Amino acid sequence: MPVDMLQTPFMSQPALMASRDEDFVKAMLAVELALAETQESLGIIPSGSAGRMRAALESHVFDVSAITTGIATGGNAAIPFVKAGRVALPNDLRRYWHLGATSQDIVDSALMLLLTPRLARLDDLLGRCRTAAIGLMEDHAETVMVGRTLMQQALPITFGVKVAHWALGFEQGRRRLAELALPVQFGGAVGVHSGWGEQGLEVMDGLAERLGLAVPVLPWHTDRQPIHALASAVDALAGAAEKLALDVSLLTQTELGEVAEPAGEGMGESSSMPHKRNPVRSAMIRGACRRIHGHAAVIINATAQPLERGLGEWHAEWTPLVDGVLLLEGALEQATVLLEGLEVNSEAMRRNLAVTGGAIMAEPVARRLTPHLGPDAAKALAADAAERARQASCPYAQALEALLGERHPELAGAIARDELDAATDPALYLGSSKAQVARAIAWLEG
Amino acid sequence: MPVDMLQTPFMSQPALMASRDEDFVKAMLAVELALAETQESLGIIPSGSAGRMRAALESHVFDVSAITTGIATGGNAAIPFVKAGRVALPNDLRRYWHLGATSQDIVDSALMLLLTPRLARLDDLLGRCRTAAIGLMEDHAETVMVGRTLMQQALPITFGVKVAHWALGFEQGRRRLAELALPVQFGGAVGVHSGWGEQGLEVMDGLAERLGLAVPVLPWHTDRQPIHALASAVDALAGAAEKLALDVSLLTQTELGEVAEPAGEGMGESSSMPHKRNPVRSAMIRGACRRIHGHAAVIINATAQPLERGLGEWHAEWTPLVDGVLLLEGALEQATVLLEGLEVNSEAMRRNLAVTGGAIMAEPVARRLTPHLGPDAAKALAADAAERARQASCPYAQALEALLGERHPELAGAIARDELDAATDPALYLGSSKAQVARAIAWLEG
Amino acid sequence: MPVDMLQTPFMSQPALMASRDEDFVKAMLAVELALAETQESLGIIPSGSAGRMRAALESHVFDVSAITTGIATGGNAAIPFVKAGRVALPNDLRRYWHLGATSQDIVDSALMLLLTPRLARLDDLLGRCRTAAIGLMEDHAETVMVGRTLMQQALPITFGVKVAHWALGFEQGRRRLAELALPVQFGGAVGVHSGWGEQGLEVMDGLAERLGLAVPVLPWHTDRQPIHALASAVDALAGAAEKLALDVSLLTQTELGEVAEPAGEGMGESSSMPHKRNPVRSAMIRGACRRIHGHAAVIINATAQPLERGLGEWHAEWTPLVDGVLLLEGALEQATVLLEGLEVNSEAMRRNLAVTGGAIMAEPVARRLTPHLGPDAAKALAADAAERARQASCPYAQALEALLGERHPELAGAIARDELDAATDPALYLGSSKAQVARAIAWLEG
Amino acid sequence: MPVDMLQTPFMSQPALMASRDEDFVKAMLAVELALAETQESLGIIPSGSAGRMRAALESHVFDVSAITTGIATGGNAAIPFVKAGRVALPNDLRRYWHLGATSQDIVDSALMLLLTPRLARLDDLLGRCRTAAIGLMEDHAETVMVGRTLMQQALPITFGVKVAHWALGFEQGRRRLAELALPVQFGGAVGVHSGWGEQGLEVMDGLAERLGLAVPVLPWHTDRQPIHALASAVDALAGAAEKLALDVSLLTQTELGEVAEPAGEGMGESSSMPHKRNPVRSAMIRGACRRIHGHAAVIINATAQPLERGLGEWHAEWTPLVDGVLLLEGALEQATVLLEGLEVNSEAMRRNLAVTGGAIMAEPVARRLTPHLGPDAAKALAADAAERARQASCPYAQALEALLGERHPELAGAIARDELDAATDPALYLGSSKAQVARAIAWLEG
Repeated sequence: MPVDMLQTPFMSQPALMASRDEDFVKAMLAVELALAETQESLGIIPSGSAGRMRAALESHVFDVSAITTGIATGGNAAIPFVKAGRVALPNDLRRYWHLGATSQDIVDSALMLLLTPRLARLDDLLGRCRTAAIGLMEDHAETVMVGRTLMQQALPITFGVKVAHWALGFEQGRRRLAELALPVQFGGAVGVHSGWGEQGLEVMDGLAERLGLAVPVLPWHTDRQPIHALASAVDALAGAAEKLALDVSLLTQTELGEVAEPAGEGMGESSSMPHKRNPVRSAMIRGACRRIHGHAAVIINATAQPLERGLGEWHAEWTPLVDGVLLLEGALEQATVLLEGLEVNSEAMRRNLAVTGGAIMAEPVARRLTPHLGPDAAKALAADAAERARQASCPYAQALEALLGERHPELAGAIARDELDAATDPALYLGSSKAQVARAIAWLEG
Repeated sequence: MPVDMLQTPFMSQPALMASRDEDFVKAMLAVELALAETQESLGIIPSGSAGRMRAALESHVFDVSAITTGIATGGNAAIPFVKAGRVALPNDLRRYWHLGATSQDIVDSALMLLLTPRLARLDDLLGRCRTAAIGLMEDHAETVMVGRTLMQQALPITFGVKVAHWALGFEQGRRRLAELALPVQFGGAVGVHSGWGEQGLEVMDGLAERLGLAVPVLPWHTDRQPIHALASAVDALAGAAEKLALDVSLLTQTELGEVAEPAGEGMGESSSMPHKRNPVRSAMIRGACRRIHGHAAVIINATAQPLERGLGEWHAEWTPLVDGVLLLEGALEQATVLLEGLEVNSEAMRRNLAVTGGAIMAEPVARRLTPHLGPDAAKALAADAAERARQASCPYAQALEALLGERHPELAGAIARDELDAATDPALYLGSSKAQVARAIAWLEG
Repeated sequence: MPVDMLQTPFMSQPALMASRDEDFVKAMLAVELALAETQESLGIIPSGSAGRMRAALESHVFDVSAITTGIATGGNAAIPFVKAGRVALPNDLRRYWHLGATSQDIVDSALMLLLTPRLARLDDLLGRCRTAAIGLMEDHAETVMVGRTLMQQALPITFGVKVAHWALGFEQGRRRLAELALPVQFGGAVGVHSGWGEQGLEVMDGLAERLGLAVPVLPWHTDRQPIHALASAVDALAGAAEKLALDVSLLTQTELGEVAEPAGEGMGESSSMPHKRNPVRSAMIRGACRRIHGHAAVIINATAQPLERGLGEWHAEWTPLVDGVLLLEGALEQATVLLEGLEVNSEAMRRNLAVTGGAIMAEPVARRLTPHLGPDAAKALAADAAERARQASCPYAQALEALLGERHPELAGAIARDELDAATDPALYLGSSKAQVARAIAWLEG
Repeated sequence: MPVDMLQTPFMSQPALMASRDEDFVKAMLAVELALAETQESLGIIPSGSAGRMRAALESHVFDVSAITTGIATGGNAAIPFVKAGRVALPNDLRRYWHLGATSQDIVDSALMLLLTPRLARLDDLLGRCRTAAIGLMEDHAETVMVGRTLMQQALPITFGVKVAHWALGFEQGRRRLAELALPVQFGGAVGVHSGWGEQGLEVMDGLAERLGLAVPVLPWHTDRQPIHALASAVDALAGAAEKLALDVSLLTQTELGEVAEPAGEGMGESSSMPHKRNPVRSAMIRGACRRIHGHAAVIINATAQPLERGLGEWHAEWTPLVDGVLLLEGALEQATVLLEGLEVNSEAMRRNLAVTGGAIMAEPVARRLTPHLGPDAAKALAADAAERARQASCPYAQALEALLGERHPELAGAIARDELDAATDPALYLGSSKAQVARAIAWLEG
């Protein structure tokens, strides 16, 4: 009764299309067969055995539900799977099946196999996000909008810069993930290839190569640094996706309306309110990412595992690891759609720049007045003028001029009204925005 | 591709027997039909409508997979479900369907319905744990074993007292859970029963009664205290189960062997080592409970939800809430088996009491010597004798007598050897163990 | 080098005024002296001993820094404290000092003593929040504003109802906290009052009474349910405070401006932008509450402690428990100020209701049209009119009338323009808002 | 009243020796002065200004407590610090103070400065751990002990291999940390160097160089990937330290006694039990690391920060970041002592290998019998013999020979008793242990 309906829509859609548990059984089988092949190539088992195993088992239909049930007695999926595989083999091959392996070798390696295409897809989605973001950055390198700090209007920026920050977050996470290697697991009962001497390491290395996995220094049954590195890199990307979704949901608020999620048939409709278009993709990203953080918390609390094999710590990793990755893939599917189809309302951005009557320009104004008044009086005047503009609903430049005249009649003429107008024009106060976009693109494409 | 096989064995088994998503659809339907009945009883919709709705929909086969897919556009399960239900109704009834409700009303209430029998089962399992624990406490009220602090042998206790602590943990959690009421959700689009005036509250109260749920003060769309209380009570019980499993896995270590998990066909066997019996139930409890903590972390980080409806926070709650409960039920199934069938090896307990040559009795000895030597010298003598006994592998009483003679010849005869023997007998140094067991039983049965 | 400056401003201010570590030493001393008094009253130690101990130690100046250093060798604060206390006693009293106690007895009980006044203050602050909230609810029972779901404008509510939700969150948390009893800890080395027989329980009960703490069923050295209950209740209140701060920070956004944090000298000013008033109190609440969730995570992951005493799990609890409470107190100090002085801008609320040209009223309009057009056509018409109003910047009622005429000329006259006007007036569409406020007040005061 | 005594002993000791808040003030000052110097070198402020600032402020005594108090109104430490600094400057320099900076620039950069020497010390401690571990690996490359999976005796390994796993955990974490660059923060009010054009980026780059910090692509006010990477690398090392402490606390259990923490004056003594030596260093490591996980949870949940500046998310990072690093440093101080002085009891290791009567060798025996009996019968015989040996307390080889004779008389003579003896000798069944140690050392030194 885990209600799948409540979580599968948040997850990787291609992965969900595939048959579920069958994939894991296939991955375990792939590990066992590659193990036999490696052992055959090293002369450990008779020539031809591995091929005959593959022939016997590749078309064998494993009873997935029996394996699932078997976990409850054995404690992990490999135990019932290995039994079922052995039974399905011709008698003379059984002794070469699962040879020198322990169940954790099979489960860990199978998980790594399962995750390999998922990580490739993450990289692919992140590539699309990057491309889409660069497009937005180029298109909006000069689109002025208000920057907001502590969710209050602060000073002007460009929309291009905002997108640059999203893109940098994703790309840092992508590079972190890309540096990770998913290692094979093979150590036997207590991690030292009992009964196989130095050949154990050869088998481990060969198995890695055959499966396309990385070669670890040693078996890592209770050295879970690779899992920690993977889970925390996934979590970092969750943070990047969540940042995008958070910004979109804030900017898409009815009163702001600066961006909108791409329209789509039925997308974001309300069950009761016809006028509403909910930022559903942002909600799904944020929901998925919060859960990824929970999965990461399980894994970081389970990194230390006792002696040669965990007692619950390892078991606790499985679902958080797989679901964490699938939830991230789901979140990135949504993020890709968002970035590729984001509706940008530059008119609303302009409108919101004017909401304070121009008072967001108080800082440049204060800076402009400082040579005349000193920093404190300049700051005070700029602030008081902002307050007056807000109360009187008049343009900031006008309030400023009036207040300047009242308080500092001696400066009459020293500062021209068009100078004040310029000082209060957001489009003239964008700092390094344009250079930042260029620098970010260079780095993203580097 | 969420690999169910990796997690379902850890979860409530009866719940898993049931069809999965179908149950949630049924629960949503139950909420909608009860809503119509409540509205009919209040004269809001025509007499007979609710009955006709029930007739039309109770046998209707909802397309679960379409609903699952629909979540991705609507953002929650109620949106596609409500559409599908409306289409399945005769035309004249459609206007009375989902009347005054919002999708969160349906999803939250359905979740509460779904959890109601699970909480009942938790209570039932906890009752069985309590009964089994009381049995163990009575049987072992005088079974002496060593108490261990910081995992070092310290002083004697009884096994009965140890079980009492397990039982108190479970019972505190059970009472905490039993005090919770699962509330109905009904507030309409923005939680104020838009369009229904004060009658909205009447509908909410009536709906609660009809569904057997608790009446909240107000709708709680973004007041998630009830969810926090539920998730943290579930987590507290996870802590209690984990404590049992932690103690069992420590006491069942090969070198200690004081308890063993109940034997069972194939239970705990290793895929490679025939002699091993792994404490698989403890591993499954510990694995499940670690994940429950992760689920709790998601929920406590999502308690604060914005304005009138969450944007990802609510979505993040669903699976952690349901899976948290199912994982706890699974853990308690295992705990029940453990407590009902635990193998207690009182001989090993006696053997381990002797492991230090009696040095665990240094504290009572020091206490016995204090009137003669003062606390500091007494403590030092007791400690040094313990060290000597350990190095010489001789009984503690003997090392003590010798050292006493060396250092304090003036006390010769003041302390008889049989006094020292008595001071070093663990069974005479059990403190309030027996009274504690009696007190705990009285409270557990209270 | 823990940078206190970065965290103390977020914490309970009265608690911070007090001397820090000194308070903990005082609390440990209070426990030891009450223990001696209890033992004296039970005839365990000679009459007069406890009084002489108090006389000797109450004015003794403990070397706090030596105790701090001593933790690193003993592993907890009681070990060096007990040593220091013993040395400061007359020789004949030393044997009665710390009698039958273990260091965890002292540390746990001292922590409970330390937290007792803090919990009282939390209750006091929550009482002030409740009073202030009720005032706001009464004042604004009819203040119309827009309800927002998924941060999009949805339908009208009142500000009174919004405050009611804040108040219910706080009050549920307050009641949860108020039901908790902080228990004394007293069990001796392995929790069974070694060497004291049944009298151990009498001492425990008497000590609890003397210290004003609750009597536990048994010592709870590794039964951490009381700590879990306390930490999760604290965390629930953090969620309630965070919800208030989240709503305030959203409503106070420049473009919304519906509420403002109370003004205060220098409060919320920016180091660079004179016009800005940052919602600093909300930021401090949200910062503190996020950290409380982290502290709660530590505690829920440490609930299961091994055998008779933890090995790191207990040690991990100390700071998260104390800092969690102090951070909550700090957050509630800010929440109290917010609620007592919140600036409510009902004019801005009215202005924002009009932002969509009235389209937030599409749902009541659809409902009004349903008898004429059926639900689907009614919903479509209401939605299309909303879109037209938004594009043409005309009032929603006007767009509606036009579209109705175009699509359904047969209804001409069936629905009067003033009916449409009424259907689009937010103040006439507040549902049970007023009744909800009354119901909430009754419950809050109940 | 945050009780420092309860947490400072767990933290970096050299860092604690330093004055606390003063260091942070110094770091903020260093950032401001380097900013002025950079600006002077770019011709932004008059030649000589920066030097005069330094002269005026380096000896100025900042009122730390006023700054601490000021955080509560401004929301961060830079606001009151900047004010205090400005006041302390000659009038004509004030306009060049904090020029173009925002408070987050100062706080973030100061935090990075503060952490730089700490990370260097972490690296240093990890170097010492590596050296000590390599020593242990070399010394114990052939020290046979039992490997334990799910905390049950499984098969032989060497102590050298166990240490190799600890060392690999630390070294993976060390390399992860070493790859991180702590970036300068400099973006001005909204991150785009408002008012400074492209020169803003030049100032940022120059400031980084002057402070010895890394150059970020762009300011990272709400792109918290660098903080996530740092916090999760710290957490990974916590996992490695915790693994060491977990293993040590398990192996040091009274019944196992295979290792002991280094003895030390008063180290690990109990307040009540003279015979006990508590594994206090392990407890402190485990306590610290659990808290690090809590700090990491705060940071990973705060990675997504809204728009141009966080509203509580940023504030929540400060203490978890600093304390996380200090706690790790404390844990590594303990780990270094543990690894440099660990007492290894190889005799106890040998003794424990014999605890099961040799039954841990059932797997090699089964493997030896397989060619004669097939895998299933061989496994069954080996397991049944283990059970018989356990029950009869006879050597495993003897039980095996007897059972073999009973069940398979046809094999009489096929397997010699000395073959069985050899098959049951742990020292002959160490797999790749020795090769693993060599491989690990090569990688560690690589």
